[in-house]
Amino acid sequence: MKKKLQELKTRLGEIKDLEAAANVLEWDQMTYMPPGGTAARAEQLATLRKMAHALFVSDEIGRLLEELQAEAADLDYDSDEASLVRVTARDYEKERKIPDWLVAEMAKATALAHEAWVQARAESNYPHFQPHLRKIVDLNIRMAEALGYKDRLYDALLDLFEPEMKTAQVARIFDELKAGLVPLVRAIAGKKDAVDDAILFLDYDEEKQWAFGQEVLHQMGFDFERGRQDKSVHPFTTSFSPNDVRLTTRVYRNQFKTALFGSIHEGGHALYEQGLRPALERTPLCDGASLGVHESQSRLWENVVGRSRAFWTFYFPRLKEFFPEQLDGMDLERFYKAINKVSRA
Amino acid sequence: MKKKLQELKTRLGEIKDLEAAANVLEWDQMTYMPPGGTAARAEQLATLRKMAHALFVSDEIGRLLEELQAEAADLDYDSDEASLVRVTARDYEKERKIPDWLVAEMAKATALAHEAWVQARAESNYPHFQPHLRKIVDLNIRMAEALGYKDRLYDALLDLFEPEMKTAQVARIFDELKAGLVPLVRAIAGKKDAVDDAILFLDYDEEKQWAFGQEVLHQMGFDFERGRQDKSVHPFTTSFSPNDVRLTTRVYRNQFKTALFGSIHEGGHALYEQGLRPALERTPLCDGASLGVHESQSRLWENVVGRSRAFWTFYFPRLKEFFPEQLDGMDLERFYKAINKVSRA
Repeated sequence: MKKKLQELKTRLGEIKDLEAAANVLEWDQMTYMPPGGTAARAEQLATLRKMAHALFVSDEIGRLLEELQAEAADLDYDSDEASLVRVTARDYEKERKIPDWLVAEMAKATALAHEAWVQARAESNYPHFQPHLRKIVDLNIRMAEALGYKDRLYDALLDLFEPEMKTAQVARIFDELKAGLVPLVRAIAGKKDAVDDAILFLDYDEEKQWAFGQEVLHQMGFDFERGRQDKSVHPFTTSFSPNDVRLTTRVYRNQFKTALFGSIHEGGHALYEQGLRPALERTPLCDGASLGVHESQSRLWENVVGRSRAFWTFYFPRLKEFFPEQLDGMDLERFYKAINKVSRA
Repeated sequence: MKKKLQELKTRLGEIKDLEAAANVLEWDQMTYMPPGGTAARAEQLATLRKMAHALFVSDEIGRLLEELQAEAADLDYDSDEASLVRVTARDYEKERKIPDWLVAEMAKATALAHEAWVQARAESNYPHFQPHLRKIVDLNIRMAEALGYKDRLYDALLDLFEPEMKTAQVARIFDELKAGLVPLVRAIAGKKDAVDDAILFLDYDEEKQWAFGQEVLHQMGFDFERGRQDKSVHPFTTSFSPNDVRLTTRVYRNQFKTALFGSIHEGGHALYEQGLRPALERTPLCDGASLGVHESQSRLWENVVGRSRAFWTFYFPRLKEFFPEQLDGMDLERFYKAINKVSRA
């Protein structure tokens, strides 16, 4: 078994390298790539994603998995070996249903759409983005059809983010939340003595906002020797290994919350990625358990930690050192309320 | 022939995508990657370079080339088709001799060495870099032996940069240059009324140096919509397509020449890359003709243009706007001489 497992790991390692390379190319596209690079980048991403897919769904990996599944039956369910075989087999079964061309088309369409989206966003020009969105929706429908589903088409796609989760379950969760939250938000937003958060929309120097965010990330435990923060049009986190995790934020002079809470949110994702166990590197296990679990980390940091009174009891005096003029006369309690103001978007 | 040529181009396009991806990963390593990313990056580069190599030296490409070489015999030597077949066949013959493992090892060793070199350089600690250099030299010897050579071992490696050039020819060129240059430099450096270039070592604000260099690059014709400049420990230029060309420079407060002439030099390389014909994209023809031809472009810009009186007649007044204090009282003629000062390194 050891030899077969090693062969599987070697193959999966190379596939993971291709995926990591594609992630670097996407990170670069969203942070530094000049607009002219878009067409070539789309081709490069299509090739990388297609090759990674083709190598993964090869008959050799299928044969190895089949043999290993039989042998892994005796292993502890939670052992690395049993988990690797189980998770890889689950992914294999799904990926086998997706044709190479669809993987390539999706990578290409997404890369081309990003550039169009950036431009459309800057110009508030939805029609410029619309054909790209149409193409991506069409490809996702093809993807769902290739994967197959019983109840709802979206079940096939949801399964890629939350294994085994069904659309009906998600709808039930949101129905329950809606029933409780909508009247609550309406009641708060309708109150006459609404919280005053005007202070968050004063002029805050961009470089100082950046420096404050870097300090918070550092103190959250984000290791800048094994990652970095950059700027992008929309914040995101990606990683090329647990030792190279990249998050981004965006900084607006007149919207204080954007950069800081973006950084704390992405910092939550990034800590999860930096915390993955080194022994799992270059295997499919070296990844978030699901999108929901990942988001639980970012939301925990952003909202439960970052908007807490304890957090601001510590950071408010520090923030005043960065922005003495803007926060002149402001006290912790009013700032804490402003940060937590509930309003209808 | 058309169908076979198309098949060849499709395969070469995907290989070029992998090479471009590897170039992005190297660019990232030298500009933004945190030190922790080194080990994973070395694996990723090894996988990408090895796969590109393995796909290129495949029997299928050999078969296509053989058939196309016969058919291309009637074509105009300089036509794109004949050139593609000829250049690809030349590269194929060379690459076939290099084993996959050596390509992977070389990529890995180089990536690991870069990080060690950066650290060793910062600490003036040669012993820290020495084992990496030893490894790279050893691998290059293996490479030369795999490629084969008649006269000198270095002939095999030189051929990778300057096709058909021999070590003996290069030695002859340098012997001739040395005979003329060494006495000349000695005579100039020994003069009592040496040129005074102290002005180049005053304190020049880094951001202003950067801004001035960006302006010069722009006016040289470098298209920032199809490329960008960043900072790195040692300047270099790379490209991911003619529409995405990256150059770097380094900025020292007290050494004015470093950033600007670095930018102009790399700008020469970058203009060559941006000027490659779009029709050749994603083929082996979309590349510099040789290292020597590439360097002819960078040196032309750096020395023949960038150190000329004409250049500074235009730029000296502009530079004074950036650095009025440093250049107070300095005239064009003395600055021009300082920029061109000859000294023994």
